[in-house]
Amino acid sequence: MLAKLITIGDEILIGQVLNTNAAFIGEGLLSIGIKLERITTIGDNEEKIISALQRALEEYDVVIITGGLGPTHDDITKKVLVNFFHTELIMNDQVLNHVKGILQKRKIQVSAINEEQALVPKNCKVLFNEVGTAPGMQFDYNGKDIFVMPGVPHEMRHLMNTHIIPYLREKNTDIIQTKTLLTTGIPESSLFSLLGDINDLTKNADLAFLPSPRGVRIRIMIKNSNETFASNELSRIENIIRERANRFIYGEGKTEIEEIIGELLKSRNLKLAVAESCTGGLIANRITDISGSSQYFERGVVTYSNESKHSVLNVPMEVIQEKGAVSEEVAILMAKGVREISGVDIGISTTGIAGPTGGSELKPVGLIWIGYSDKSETFAKSFNLGGDRLVFKERASQTALDILRKQLLNKDK
Amino acid sequence: MLAKLITIGDEILIGQVLNTNAAFIGEGLLSIGIKLERITTIGDNEEKIISALQRALEEYDVVIITGGLGPTHDDITKKVLVNFFHTELIMNDQVLNHVKGILQKRKIQVSAINEEQALVPKNCKVLFNEVGTAPGMQFDYNGKDIFVMPGVPHEMRHLMNTHIIPYLREKNTDIIQTKTLLTTGIPESSLFSLLGDINDLTKNADLAFLPSPRGVRIRIMIKNSNETFASNELSRIENIIRERANRFIYGEGKTEIEEIIGELLKSRNLKLAVAESCTGGLIANRITDISGSSQYFERGVVTYSNESKHSVLNVPMEVIQEKGAVSEEVAILMAKGVREISGVDIGISTTGIAGPTGGSELKPVGLIWIGYSDKSETFAKSFNLGGDRLVFKERASQTALDILRKQLLNKDK
Repeated sequence: MLAKLITIGDEILIGQVLNTNAAFIGEGLLSIGIKLERITTIGDNEEKIISALQRALEEYDVVIITGGLGPTHDDITKKVLVNFFHTELIMNDQVLNHVKGILQKRKIQVSAINEEQALVPKNCKVLFNEVGTAPGMQFDYNGKDIFVMPGVPHEMRHLMNTHIIPYLREKNTDIIQTKTLLTTGIPESSLFSLLGDINDLTKNADLAFLPSPRGVRIRIMIKNSNETFASNELSRIENIIRERANRFIYGEGKTEIEEIIGELLKSRNLKLAVAESCTGGLIANRITDISGSSQYFERGVVTYSNESKHSVLNVPMEVIQEKGAVSEEVAILMAKGVREISGVDIGISTTGIAGPTGGSELKPVGLIWIGYSDKSETFAKSFNLGGDRLVFKERASQTALDILRKQLLNKDK
Repeated sequence: MLAKLITIGDEILIGQVLNTNAAFIGEGLLSIGIKLERITTIGDNEEKIISALQRALEEYDVVIITGGLGPTHDDITKKVLVNFFHTELIMNDQVLNHVKGILQKRKIQVSAINEEQALVPKNCKVLFNEVGTAPGMQFDYNGKDIFVMPGVPHEMRHLMNTHIIPYLREKNTDIIQTKTLLTTGIPESSLFSLLGDINDLTKNADLAFLPSPRGVRIRIMIKNSNETFASNELSRIENIIRERANRFIYGEGKTEIEEIIGELLKSRNLKLAVAESCTGGLIANRITDISGSSQYFERGVVTYSNESKHSVLNVPMEVIQEKGAVSEEVAILMAKGVREISGVDIGISTTGIAGPTGGSELKPVGLIWIGYSDKSETFAKSFNLGGDRLVFKERASQTALDILRKQLLNKDK
């Protein structure tokens, strides 16, 4: 089954609101083997809505519409549907009682425009909306399904989860299986080359490469009515990719590297401290985004000035003056220093040039030294990560966390 | 002028990636008086791309395409454009040198697929991409403009800002004036009530409220061919809003509060240090996102454990044990401590319960104490910020930075 989504609303067109509904719907449909093939976003305009719906019904089996169901004058979706189907609005008593109940609970007077929310096109099946005042609707169009939902994200999610996904799961017989492998430390083109001849990988599957400052994700997607074949094929492709590129793969799906590190530290009963210069707190921030991080994250320091590198981390001023703040020696002393002052098992550090100013020929913008120290090993590695200031910081934090991840994997549980 | 955006990429259709590019482009076009009328998202499929482009050229003056320009097999946009225009690919030496330069700087071998990125359709004007390897392209189609950009967000933004927006600003004669006022510390519904009767504000303008964890943005939008009328009306509305809600307004447009603080600190020649517990480095990270922050940001510490609050910031262990780590006393001692150990003018601190665990009846998840200390004044304030862990951290960092902003405004330049 192929689906199209029509999202209605100026707020998305003028960039005030991200279309998170589209992502939720796309992901939900995929999970039951339905591919969202097209997303169209338009304003509250009758002609545009009708033409988008007509085109959709020519090409797709399922059409989902969100938005324009609110109580105010600019919400026209229901009226448009009445015109499209040459039908009329009728009062739905169950919805009316529900709307009255919600408003009374909030101590809001029920007005005429609230009551109008209980009017629905005569030919629709009402999708009861427990969490809001605008009902969802389902229409049959020569065997094709049209679903209409309010654009308010939590109401839309409720209707998807309780009505639309269960209905379509029952109806659909296609199977789509996907897996996403997360890599870091290798650019898209090098990763592609590393995988060598990919014809064997793509003969039964779609293979996509998704680059971001944190790394390149590889997505494998298989559409096949034979479920066993699809899952075997998915495993086969994953194994080949892992054989060729495993040292760059840190996780799967939507996992962030800071979650993986948290699990590794917990299972090994190790504590971590971080000394950051150019990453400016981003590493500590990412680590503490994970609930429970206080179990393994002891402290972070953002030693931005040279003086603070000396006074907080005991890096000798002579070393900073002789070698420069961005140097192998300083990165090592920072990692060792933060580990020692905090009495933890592992210290990591960053010192680099985030730019756009402060670079030189010898030490250009984008250069970074990342330090690592535990009781048996202390070292620093340099990278040139390029990018603008924020991209540099993202790449730098990811690179440092990946060095930590690899070191942790070598330690016994 | 009316515009259509075509975003190409399965990652958006299956909900793996939010279409942030669409929001950026919609907002950018609006800022120069061009309304984005339609966004279409499709996969990397030649037939679909061509038909979306053909339909777009029937209805719109400007067509923008993003995505599908990477170096791997699944990126087909360039090939599709060559077919659409019945032209051929030619090597662009400037782009080729640039690609080689980028890769050499990052010590990456230049491969054949990298070189192919410098191939461009013969009839296009190359939009030079300083920050990536895939060039942007501009095509003329009977006086209509087609722009093509890579989907990588920071590359797309660079091309919009340096090529497309300046070009279209020159060409477009429509007038849409907008202003966005940034508030924090007040929920959407309270802000709306505070503004009172808004009929007078909306008679010639669209007024929108956009809530986020960092605060509520108020957007005023006026479409009027009389430029003087529009700008007078914009000022009038802004003044009324400022009269009623000024104490919650910290900035305009897209300015972040960390930029405002940077300017305030620089103009007053003051230095800052930050001691974070529950915000986990987010405040330091936001401050150091600003280029030039090393001028005024001396250091940050993320004292996550009680021991680190004591050993780094000299908070007595007895106070932590008696009052608890999340308390007025500890917040004050952290702010004072970080100011004193770093020898700066101002110290700020956070200590709170980010959740989801660790709350109690007396100290629930969402509670935070924010400390402030300079040579004449030291205090702490408490807030209950609610939200999940990441929303809490965002709100907490914003609240702390806004306290700092207000204190700085009271100081002489």
